[in-house]
Amino acid sequence: MIVGSRGFVFNDLITCYLRGVVTYFPWVCRLTTLIRIARSGSVTPEIEEVAEAEGISPNKLRSRIATGRVIIIRNVKADGVKGLGVGQGLFTKVNVNVGTSELVKDLDLELEKVRISKKYGADSIMDLSTGGDLDTIRRAVIKETRPLPLGTVPTYQAFIEAFRKKKGGAYFTEDELFNVVERHLKDGVDFMTIHAGITKDLGLKLIRSGRVIKIVSRGGDMILGWMLYNDSENPFYKNFDYLLEMFAEYDATISLGDALRPGGIADALDEFHIGELINNARLARRAIEYGVQVMIEGPGHVPLHLIKTDVKLMKRLSGGVPYYVLGPLPTDIAAPYDHIAAAAGASIAAAAGADLLCYLTPAEHLSLPTLEQVKEGLIATKIAAHIGDIVKYGPRAMKRDILVSKLRAEVNIAKTIPHLLIPEDAERVFKQFGVAPAKGCTMCGEYCPLMLLQEQAKKVLKEKK
Amino acid sequence: MIVGSRGFVFNDLITCYLRGVVTYFPWVCRLTTLIRIARSGSVTPEIEEVAEAEGISPNKLRSRIATGRVIIIRNVKADGVKGLGVGQGLFTKVNVNVGTSELVKDLDLELEKVRISKKYGADSIMDLSTGGDLDTIRRAVIKETRPLPLGTVPTYQAFIEAFRKKKGGAYFTEDELFNVVERHLKDGVDFMTIHAGITKDLGLKLIRSGRVIKIVSRGGDMILGWMLYNDSENPFYKNFDYLLEMFAEYDATISLGDALRPGGIADALDEFHIGELINNARLARRAIEYGVQVMIEGPGHVPLHLIKTDVKLMKRLSGGVPYYVLGPLPTDIAAPYDHIAAAAGASIAAAAGADLLCYLTPAEHLSLPTLEQVKEGLIATKIAAHIGDIVKYGPRAMKRDILVSKLRAEVNIAKTIPHLLIPEDAERVFKQFGVAPAKGCTMCGEYCPLMLLQEQAKKVLKEKK
Repeated sequence: MIVGSRGFVFNDLITCYLRGVVTYFPWVCRLTTLIRIARSGSVTPEIEEVAEAEGISPNKLRSRIATGRVIIIRNVKADGVKGLGVGQGLFTKVNVNVGTSELVKDLDLELEKVRISKKYGADSIMDLSTGGDLDTIRRAVIKETRPLPLGTVPTYQAFIEAFRKKKGGAYFTEDELFNVVERHLKDGVDFMTIHAGITKDLGLKLIRSGRVIKIVSRGGDMILGWMLYNDSENPFYKNFDYLLEMFAEYDATISLGDALRPGGIADALDEFHIGELINNARLARRAIEYGVQVMIEGPGHVPLHLIKTDVKLMKRLSGGVPYYVLGPLPTDIAAPYDHIAAAAGASIAAAAGADLLCYLTPAEHLSLPTLEQVKEGLIATKIAAHIGDIVKYGPRAMKRDILVSKLRAEVNIAKTIPHLLIPEDAERVFKQFGVAPAKGCTMCGEYCPLMLLQEQAKKVLKEKK
Repeated sequence: MIVGSRGFVFNDLITCYLRGVVTYFPWVCRLTTLIRIARSGSVTPEIEEVAEAEGISPNKLRSRIATGRVIIIRNVKADGVKGLGVGQGLFTKVNVNVGTSELVKDLDLELEKVRISKKYGADSIMDLSTGGDLDTIRRAVIKETRPLPLGTVPTYQAFIEAFRKKKGGAYFTEDELFNVVERHLKDGVDFMTIHAGITKDLGLKLIRSGRVIKIVSRGGDMILGWMLYNDSENPFYKNFDYLLEMFAEYDATISLGDALRPGGIADALDEFHIGELINNARLARRAIEYGVQVMIEGPGHVPLHLIKTDVKLMKRLSGGVPYYVLGPLPTDIAAPYDHIAAAAGASIAAAAGADLLCYLTPAEHLSLPTLEQVKEGLIATKIAAHIGDIVKYGPRAMKRDILVSKLRAEVNIAKTIPHLLIPEDAERVFKQFGVAPAKGCTMCGEYCPLMLLQEQAKKVLKEKK
């Protein structure tokens, strides 16, 4: 709380100073955080750029950044990153996870996944590597990812390095954990999943509960295991102010992890899921007050009818902080078609207000994804984001849909193809039987009932004139 | 109306006779229709069988059949068909469309599609062939489809045969149209799409409207073209009682087509979509009163937030008649990934009360589907049906989900696989990098944080005892 108060006094001082200065000396932005600057009333060139790309007013965007409802994800000390706007009033974004596992540690494969993700329109990448030399891998992935922002889960590295050094049953020290966070910030990581919301009290209740899958989050397992092993409070929770100081220095984004997200639909919106959300919402408000950008991560497995409730509750509890959702998966039995099940859940989540969708591939629950599966998962998630945006923004998000519909009305498939989501794939399917007609469609050929109707309609309209 | 009244008197007479008789002489069922029998209070062996398969009370099912809220799709004069229960309180079913086109008329390919559909759990098949010898194709498809029920759109055949005989611009006669319907019934077709709800008045308003895609339904194009060409009312609409007599004789199901379904999201729930729905709902009530089983077909392209409204409105207008939906597609730009977009729409539709989902393949809007695309489309739609059933029926529909979740909690992927939707595909993905561990998952290998947590949790629980 001392750190929090110090931050607050500091804010007031710089606010007076910055009003009027930032506009003329943009390098000043690097001395403080985006939220503090936005709160001072200044619209930075970065804010203007995001506002223009999204088609909204710069001042509206500034006000949303000031109150934590929009974030621009980037580490200000990182090279080559272009800030990603996420939050209220902005188009829904899609994140792709890549990374080695202990069993498949092929850096080239993961870098190729990054390239494919960029080709098919990912908005951000997370490196979740757990196998091989993690520092080397992360640095290579960051380089390949640029100009997109990169996220990590530093707890993985602290856990794995401690495990390698000390072997099973032991855990990292608090210093080791925060050193990893620092290393990631220095390397230019733009956002990090921080499982700060799972407290020891929640964890102890959880292990005595009848929850179907107690804890499905890997980072959550690590933090809860640490708390039990050390009989101590969550290091991120008890040192949250220290973490805010660290993130403020790089103006990077904290993504509050959901260690207690439901891992099966039977557990959705139970006391653990909501208990952690309440903690995360409180921590998020504290981060914003301090001037650090923050989003909250969401479930997990949730039956279809509860997804909207989850999103609305999260937004209510947090005061509108950006919501980064994984899935939600509305069934547990769809693997290896979880990308399809997740697209259904994510469409509803996005429509209800989720801001960033984490992709999910056909390999979810089964394996690391192949290159093809990365592409499939990304496309499914991009479709969900677009479906959600149509609900969120109406005509502003429907321009391509209306254009495609108009071209369809002319019975001209070939002309629609360049305007579809992935034209090259549409082209391939259009010609898969080798008989695609120049005009018209492949269904009826010369008996086109629509063209015949159009003739009749023309006659009728002429007669009645 | 005369036919309708005659039917009604007939109903009353047989009701007295049948009460008590049907139970002992099940062959009597073949003399009249299922709705009339159910209305008389009798539970037939067929009703008992469907009730048992669905896990609901036979008498509840009987009452829903009597009021038209449940149908059992089969042509009583057909060989080898097993009745398919569709409607309120029953699990959501999935239909697969097969059929030749004018450009790709490969009967063997279509028969293989039927076999694949049966393998992956289709509940019914529709033959939408428009190329080749339609009678021969239909008879072969029916044979391959058994024991599943088969549906058709007889208008296609009437249109195409007239076109072949008379060439462009001319249309079938009313007699030719009804002769095709009769031929299909005699061949054992179990349900038929009948575009009876599009009236001449609606059609004339439509062609003068600013609708983005005026009419996307092929059968609708044919019927509206016919009305304009002949300056006459829709033959199915004006002769609906005659149609009921024909269907009653075979106790087959009328599927009221949606000629005016929106073909682009911009047109969803407009006056034409709803105008036709109102007509279809009125015709459906008349069919039930007469004793003929009926369902109504639904859209089409609908933005996500309007899908529930569409389903609830349809159920309200029709008094709860089974709803057979195509899609709904909540975006127009997803081809060749429309099966994913449709899964999102269909999940919501099913959750809101849709009873039968028509599958949609990655080839939708582009081409006839390949065998692989038939499989993909079917699986996507089955996932949507299951997601909807979880909402509709809760624990009754969640048994496999909970079992899979429990096995996941044991960190044993291999054990979950037999309980997933398509185990063989899950197995393939599980082993795609050739390193699937016997126990545990492929992500963390020996550093399994979950197993480590379980150790700690065991210790804590022991200490506190």
